[in-house]
Parts: sequence; C-alpha cells; structure tokens
Amino acid sequence: MPAPIDFYFDFSSPYGFLASQKIEALAAAHRREVNWRPMLLGVAFKATGMAPLPHVPLKGTYSMRDFLRSARFHGIAYRQPATFPISTVSAARAYYWLQGRDPKKAVALAKALYNAYFAEGLDISKPENVAQVARRLGVSAEELAAALNDPAVKEKTKNEVDTAVAKGVFGSPFIVVDGEPFWGVDRFDQIERWLAQGPF
Amino acid sequence: MPAPIDFYFDFSSPYGFLASQKIEALAAAHRREVNWRPMLLGVAFKATGMAPLPHVPLKGTYSMRDFLRSARFHGIAYRQPATFPISTVSAARAYYWLQGRDPKKAVALAKALYNAYFAEGLDISKPENVAQVARRLGVSAEELAAALNDPAVKEKTKNEVDTAVAKGVFGSPFIVVDGEPFWGVDRFDQIERWLAQGPF
Repeated sequence: MPAPIDFYFDFSSPYGFLASQKIEALAAAHRREVNWRPMLLGVAFKATGMAPLPHVPLKGTYSMRDFLRSARFHGIAYRQPATFPISTVSAARAYYWLQGRDPKKAVALAKALYNAYFAEGLDISKPENVAQVARRLGVSAEELAAALNDPAVKEKTKNEVDTAVAKGVFGSPFIVVDGEPFWGVDRFDQIERWLAQGPF
Repeated sequence: MPAPIDFYFDFSSPYGFLASQKIEALAAAHRREVNWRPMLLGVAFKATGMAPLPHVPLKGTYSMRDFLRSARFHGIAYRQPATFPISTVSAARAYYWLQGRDPKKAVALAKALYNAYFAEGLDISKPENVAQVARRLGVSAEELAAALNDPAVKEKTKNEVDTAVAKGVFGSPFIVVDGEPFWGVDRFDQIERWLAQGPF
C-alpha cells in the first residue's frame, strides 16, 4: 500500500467541501488512503497576508458565483451558508479529539460537519452545533463539550494547524501526494495523473 | 455565429500564457471566435488589494512550482522567465495600437509576445524588445516605437484595462462567455461544458 494522501481543508471552505466529496473515490481508485487534516484558513492568512474571499473586492463577487457553479459542475448538492465564512476552530478541535479515540469516526464527523454547514445550513462555528452533529454519530455531546475546552485538545489542534502552515499549506483544499503539493479542487485532474503515472 | 469569447490576460501571467495556447482550439470547436483583450494585473491589484504571486508568502513558492507542473500537464513548452513578473504596459499598448490597424496581426503579435516571454525568455517589459518581436511579423519598429508614446494609444489602452476591471476582471486569464465569467486556465473544463451545453 503506498503512502496515504494528506487532505488539508478548512471546514468553512466551499472548495474544500467539494474536494471532500471527491477525495475518497479518487484515492481509492489508486489504492490510497486519505489522511483528513482540518486546518484553519485564518492562521494561514496571517502567514500569507491573504484574506477571506468575500472580503476581496471583485474576486469575492466572482467567487460566490463560482462556488455555486463549481458545485453544479461537479454534481454536488451545495447551499451557500447564510453566515460565511465562519470560525471553524471548534469543528477542527472536535475532529482532532475524536481522531485520538476513533480515527474512522473522526472522518465520519468531518464529512457530517461539512454536510451540516454546506447542505443543511447549520452554523458549525457554534460548539453546540458541532456537538449536535457529533451526537448523530453516537458521540457523547457532554464528552465533546468537555473536549472542546480541554487544553490538550486545543494544543493538539494548534500544533496540527501550525505544522501544516509551516509545511506551506496556505489554502483549502490542499492535497499532498508523496510530498507533491496541490492546491484547489481544480487540481484534481493533475492529482489523478500523478496518482496514475507518478511524477510528471 | 454566436458571440465571440472575451479572453482577458496579462502578458506576464503564466496561467494566461497557458490559456493562450488553448483558447483558440476550444473556441473553434464550438464555432466561436476569440476576442483577445490584454489587461494589466497591476491595475486590477489596486482594485482588489491582491499582490503578484511571487510576493505572497507560501502561495508564491507553491505557484512557482505549479506554473511549471501545469505547463507540463498541458503539454506546453514553458520556461520560467528570469525577470518575473514584469510590467506589460508596452506589450498591451502595442497590441491595442495594432488592433486598430490589423486585428488579425494584433492577435499574432499577442501570441508572439507571450512566446517571446515564456519560451524565449525575452524581457517584453522593454519597448525595444516589444518592437523586436513585432518586427518579425512585418510591423515597422519605428511606427511601433512612435505608437507606444502616442497619447491616443495610451488612452485607448487605459480605457480597455479600466473597463475590464470595472466589469469585474480581476485576474488572468479571465474568460467571459455570453456574460458568464470564468477565472483561470483551470476553468477550461467548465468553459467547455458551458460552450457545449449552455448555462449549467
């Protein structure tokens, strides 16, 4: 089995959401596993000086249109959240906490959180909404609420995000295959060739 | 014949160069013509607050790698210019001047300028290098040199670029099909579907 694919994403990223709907099938077609790694765009923005898309004149307007069109292009159900973007630190902490206990369930939680935000319109910046989504997967809401305030979980999440940015992860989605970085769901064609043929 | 495709690009844009190598074939396959419209990213950056890719931490490093890999992916000969990015106002003025005299030759000049910069490594920020490229196409270097200093040519170029930015053109390449905007050579898959099927 070759090395897993690193899949970095922010839970508030539309293109990350689209990628999340496609990454497992792409990886499986090439007998790879996916290492889901939530990151925080806000931390990356501090390193790059970039800003959330809706805050960028002209590009923001275009992007709102492109989110919807790209979702239709990929055949993925998508609803632009009323509150956008949002802080996703609680969602990321919930993921990394659960990953330490049950990695498979942590991935299921990541998918469920993405779906809650981009299909149901649930504001997952709120810890109680993260807990609500986790409860559907059989995770104790009380344990999750405690974990979100656990300094060790905070530290683990911070380390994961800082390490990602230190490695050059500046956007979402950001996919690393055998050390080769690919930014954007619009690099899936290049990722596919890389997985099929190796370096080009 | 349906309306032509508007193809906006900056002569210093690697992704614009890649798009320039593909746009005519894509348009012709759908019986469209291409309206080549050089713009100036520097003017767009003033509107958006964005910066040239090499100036952006992390993203700049990634982009230099992505330029080369994307060129290989598309099978396009590409050499990263030693001086990058550059001012392309002379190249844009040369284009818009020639367009007023011989639109077909102006497109040939655009292709030749892109090739000179991204394949030959000629610094086309220099008016004398723009003239050298134009001379190969049978354009008088003296007339071109005069045109680059002609206030009417400067005004025409400024108007074209300002109008583009006012319409929301913030990057390169930027392609508009029947009013629908597409940013990036990585939107060619969506453009192709739009041309084939209409709006989606």
